[in-house]
Amino acid sequence: MGLELYLDLLSQPCRAIYIFAKKNGIPFQLRTVDLLKGQHLSDAFVQVNPLKKVPALKDGDFTLTESVAILLYLTRKYKVPDYWYPQDLQARARVDEYLAWQHTALRRNCLRALWHKVMFPVFLGEQVSSELLAATLAELDDTLQVFEDKFLQNKAFLIGSQISLADLVAITELMHVSVSPLVLAAKSLKADPSWLPGTGKWRLQ
Amino acid sequence: MGLELYLDLLSQPCRAIYIFAKKNGIPFQLRTVDLLKGQHLSDAFVQVNPLKKVPALKDGDFTLTESVAILLYLTRKYKVPDYWYPQDLQARARVDEYLAWQHTALRRNCLRALWHKVMFPVFLGEQVSSELLAATLAELDDTLQVFEDKFLQNKAFLIGSQISLADLVAITELMHVSVSPLVLAAKSLKADPSWLPGTGKWRLQ
Ligand SMILES: N[C@@H](CCC(=O)N[C@@H](CS)C(=O)NCC(=O)O)C(=O)O
Ligand SMILES: N[C@@H](CCC(=O)N[C@@H](CS)C(=O)NCC(=O)O)C(=O)O
Repeated sequence: MGLELYLDLLSQPCRAIYIFAKKNGIPFQLRTVDLLKGQHLSDAFVQVNPLKKVPALKDGDFTLTESVAILLYLTRKYKVPDYWYPQDLQARARVDEYLAWQHTALRRNCLRALWHKVMFPVFLGEQVSSELLAATLAELDDTLQVFEDKFLQNKAFLIGSQISLADLVAITELMHVSVSPLVLAAKSLKADPSWLPGTGKWRLQ
Repeated sequence: MGLELYLDLLSQPCRAIYIFAKKNGIPFQLRTVDLLKGQHLSDAFVQVNPLKKVPALKDGDFTLTESVAILLYLTRKYKVPDYWYPQDLQARARVDEYLAWQHTALRRNCLRALWHKVMFPVFLGEQVSSELLAATLAELDDTLQVFEDKFLQNKAFLIGSQISLADLVAITELMHVSVSPLVLAAKSLKADPSWLPGTGKWRLQ
């Protein structure tokens, strides 16, 4: 069995991997794991990723989780253009810096905003407190300012004039908060919140 | 000017970098940034890291933040033993996987526990609600279980029989929640919470 990618294209990190593999002509089998149907909780998927999250990669006997690790694995295994993850010491360090920063910054705050503005009210019919919502949106604003001032600046891409893994991870996250399609999808669903991933966690975060 | 490392050894990611540099005989100037004195907020330090966080690296004109990016930079620039970040494709992917996972898992939950159990009550004389504290500790427990079951398993180190960057990042975090020394230090301080980094944020997290 060749490369298998376990993805739900509704998920930001999954989209980054999908775009990267497609764009670089990397051959893979797409194994769709439908989060809205709770397929990430199935026995079959837990064999692949005990953390019950997408994305996950399977390459023969080797399984790997975490989108950043998966992108780096694909970058190394398949000969992709240098700009994705430049050999140059300083440019590569800039990609690593962004990929480390985003976990607790852009990704965290985009996710929080989505949960507090959309997922709770629309899926669960519950409002988060206005104090919490305001704090969430203020943190997202701050993070977007740092994204511009420290990372993007006046450059075409995060690292300079060419795209890199950092841009791919950033753009899929930023696109995700233009949530209207998700709102519509949400509204059209039968309201059964039992599949909602990590609901309790987002109540407090 | 050679390599400069801006660190406060009270900080977990700073300690990982310090131990790594010392252990590998990497020559550097230690620039201490005393968090408890608010030195990370000083004009001088903001020039180095506009994010106002330690660790930060300066190598001539090049500055770099984010501990994971700094560790990778040092690993590439100085010829350190292979086991820190193995050339082997799968072993390296395992290190990357752990380094990506920990941001929102072990590090996040160790920090939360520290703030909710120690920083708020001891420094600010404020208790967090018992519901929040219980949730924080339960999440830490879950994370430690994942750390053991998925990452460490029955191996000597996270990646196998030799130490890697992943272990260094893990051990500095795990040591940090054996907080008694910090509690004592905290108690002996004059109670001026104005320097407390990111206080508001931790109220909600
Ligand atoms: N740090 C992980 C995050 C993975 C993640 O949060 N995946 C979400 C979808 S975007 C998921 O599977 N959630 C299901 C759940 O948490 O139950 C990565 O970058 O791969
Ligand atoms: N993701 C960053 C985290 C850096 C960080 O949170 N540093 C803390 C000390 S452990 C800090 O400087 N906090 C000061 C503040 O947040 O104001 C890294 O790994 O370097």
